[in-house]
Amino acid sequence: MIPFNLPAVTGRETDYLSEAVKNQKLSGDGEFTQKCSKWFEERFQCPKVLLTTSCTHALEMAALLADIREGDEIIMPSYTFVSTANAFVLRGATIVFVDIRPDTMNMDEKVVEDAITNRTKAIVPVHYAGVSCEMDTILSLAKRYGLLVIEDAAQAVMSRYKGKALGTIGDMGCYSFHETKNYNCGEGGAIVLHDNEYIQRAEILREKGTNRTVFFRGEIDKYSWVDIGSSYLPSELNAAYLYAQLEMASEINRKRLDLWNQYYTGLLPLAEQGYIDLPVVPEGCEHNGHMFYIKAKNLEERTALIDYLLKNNCKSVFHYVPLHSTHAGIKFGRFHGEDRYTTRESERLLRLPLFYNLESEKVSYIIKIIYQFFT
Amino acid sequence: MIPFNLPAVTGRETDYLSEAVKNQKLSGDGEFTQKCSKWFEERFQCPKVLLTTSCTHALEMAALLADIREGDEIIMPSYTFVSTANAFVLRGATIVFVDIRPDTMNMDEKVVEDAITNRTKAIVPVHYAGVSCEMDTILSLAKRYGLLVIEDAAQAVMSRYKGKALGTIGDMGCYSFHETKNYNCGEGGAIVLHDNEYIQRAEILREKGTNRTVFFRGEIDKYSWVDIGSSYLPSELNAAYLYAQLEMASEINRKRLDLWNQYYTGLLPLAEQGYIDLPVVPEGCEHNGHMFYIKAKNLEERTALIDYLLKNNCKSVFHYVPLHSTHAGIKFGRFHGEDRYTTRESERLLRLPLFYNLESEKVSYIIKIIYQFFT
Ligand SMILES: Cc1ncc(COP(=O)(O)O)c(/C=N/[C@@H]2[C@H](O)[C@@H](O)[C@@H](OP(=O)(O)OP(=O)(O)OC[C@H]3O[C@@H](n4cc(C)c(=O)[nH]c4=O)C[C@@H]3O)O[C@@H]2C)c1O
Ligand SMILES: Cc1ncc(COP(=O)(O)O)c(/C=N/[C@@H]2[C@H](O)[C@@H](O)[C@@H](OP(=O)(O)OP(=O)(O)OC[C@H]3O[C@@H](n4cc(C)c(=O)[nH]c4=O)C[C@@H]3O)O[C@@H]2C)c1O
Repeated sequence: MIPFNLPAVTGRETDYLSEAVKNQKLSGDGEFTQKCSKWFEERFQCPKVLLTTSCTHALEMAALLADIREGDEIIMPSYTFVSTANAFVLRGATIVFVDIRPDTMNMDEKVVEDAITNRTKAIVPVHYAGVSCEMDTILSLAKRYGLLVIEDAAQAVMSRYKGKALGTIGDMGCYSFHETKNYNCGEGGAIVLHDNEYIQRAEILREKGTNRTVFFRGEIDKYSWVDIGSSYLPSELNAAYLYAQLEMASEINRKRLDLWNQYYTGLLPLAEQGYIDLPVVPEGCEHNGHMFYIKAKNLEERTALIDYLLKNNCKSVFHYVPLHSTHAGIKFGRFHGEDRYTTRESERLLRLPLFYNLESEKVSYIIKIIYQFFT
Repeated sequence: MIPFNLPAVTGRETDYLSEAVKNQKLSGDGEFTQKCSKWFEERFQCPKVLLTTSCTHALEMAALLADIREGDEIIMPSYTFVSTANAFVLRGATIVFVDIRPDTMNMDEKVVEDAITNRTKAIVPVHYAGVSCEMDTILSLAKRYGLLVIEDAAQAVMSRYKGKALGTIGDMGCYSFHETKNYNCGEGGAIVLHDNEYIQRAEILREKGTNRTVFFRGEIDKYSWVDIGSSYLPSELNAAYLYAQLEMASEINRKRLDLWNQYYTGLLPLAEQGYIDLPVVPEGCEHNGHMFYIKAKNLEERTALIDYLLKNNCKSVFHYVPLHSTHAGIKFGRFHGEDRYTTRESERLLRLPLFYNLESEKVSYIIKIIYQFFT
């Protein structure tokens, strides 16, 4: 059976884990955590990247920094993972879901403006499959209406939009290092910040609402409770593991893009014959090969294809259940405008195996099975 | 220099880490996470223990499960770590701080009743230094007024009260595996639950508010957003490391108690001569040697003693800044009743080095230095 995903292992993970254990300092903000932060800050040219325990928690930190309160509205696609919404709902916000574009499965930037009210506090673009949302339009809207832009770049580490690293374009950006992601440590995340006030407050929020960081820099003689907060520091174990993956980031990225391109080229004739739809990468977007998906005609055909692939020893999976259609989505949000694509496209979408250690022959085989199914 | 703390290393940590890496499944709720849960459930005789990313997050989960809302009041000692309070403040609660007992530094059970109003939702006893609060009184008060009891047992893993494991006595209990704790994985925690409704909802809350657990048991054909939630699953890396420590729990506990008793016996004459005060372990309480503290006459003497120990190559530290006196404590809470002991006793308290790999000769040496200081 070809699995849908296997997390990348680069070879140095256990060495770095042993090193971390030997350091006898496994609580947060140790040597490897600092190394990971530096790696991102230098590579992505941004002032501050703080590791967190997950992307979910990076989003929660963003909601705290944005000072989201009861009744505030947050605009986001309905086609996303629950955490994108939950982080804001935990602070009392109402989620305003908007439709997606069928070509990228990203928030349709053209319907955002109509969803803005005087309660709107932030727009949350989700870069699906590591392909950028139309950020210029979103940023200019945000500027015009005085809104924050918080990028859910969970899937978009190493992707770019007009040369800029995704996650570093809005006011804040959130990354995931969950096992399902390109670079992982099982569970992990990071938040990207630019503004100095945010950076200072973030140091406090992730240290349980204390000025402990200032204390350990020797600037005060004891630390105390100064703000709300939580515990967002990952253990050094997670950071050590992650660092081994970041050191190999270019190599992992290259390999994933190769596999992605192989799928794309191989399936193009089938798309040209109208059997399936393929993902679109708009101009100016450099993606990271996070995911390869195709679209069947409809839900029935997709279900049949999943079954067919499974019978032929290949695990393929559908993805998000659109949030506005769920129990909690109805309770905590509303869909603004028409659901032209969200439900329909999500029902057609099918993700194929794509991971660092997947052999090119396996991809050829999967392509062959898909041809067999359709022709 | 004798450090204040060094985390225990038992020897099997790196083996288990390698095993986890080899399993290629590092995201939450894998094999080691299950093993740790089982270990606690069997050893402590309780129906459900779920690992979390920290004790802070276990407390946050407890606040979500307890359905804490704007204006609810939570009674707790002021002498505790910020997370005890923050977890409830994040849900909009007001913290009602009560005084502590000078003998144990625990919540004074005799002043709790007077602090109860019709907005009170929960009592949060904190078992300081792994020594139990007077749980019978607290439980009977809670029963009488229909309040929840949420134990902050961050420091109390392996301690008991009248035979029962701390953390398993109230409606919910929270453990910490932070580096500063007896059993650690850098950052980590757990929540103890009994009630079936809580157990079911907890599964959802820690899976980002989805019914993913039910889905993976094969009971539904897709999972979706059903409730608020967050990401409380630790990586398998943390669980693997922790499991190596749990396997050695009895040995670690014994060693810590030996060192604790050595301090106690060695310093008893000094206490009997009235120079210092020693911790008290009430009848019915079995503690876990989490911490050895002494009390100097006052803040000035304590500061002088910390300096003297430091000059003699020993690191000793004070502890919590009482929450009601802090910026955030004033904003989010109030102190009920008189502060007879909280401020005064916290200013006198000094923690001495105590950790698994500390040699008995070092303890003898520290005792000698303390005698030198006083006599
Ligand atoms: C009851 C309770 N409930 C919940 C949780 C949450 O658990 P999780 O972490 O799993 O989420 C905890 C955990 N707390 C631990 C420690 O107990 C706590 O001491 C502190 O430890 P530190 O890393 O800071 O080290 P330290 O050596 O304890 O102190 C180092 C210096 O800092 C000075 N200091 C200290 C304090 C505390 C303070 O207010 N102000 C202050 O100026 C004293 C020293 O010189 O923080 C930890 C997370 C808890 O105890
Ligand atoms: C934009 C965005 N923002 C924020 C975050 C938060 O990051 P952190 O984790 O770091 O906090 C994420 C992370 N999400 C990842 C994955 O992207 C996500 O797919 C899912 O992965 P799974 O482990 O469940 O595995 P899978 O193979 O993706 O699916 C397995 C089966 O489950 C079925 N399924 C799936 C879904 C999604 C759903 O709604 N309903 C549903 O029935 C499809 C399959 O058969 O969850 C992860 C945490 C994100 O993507």
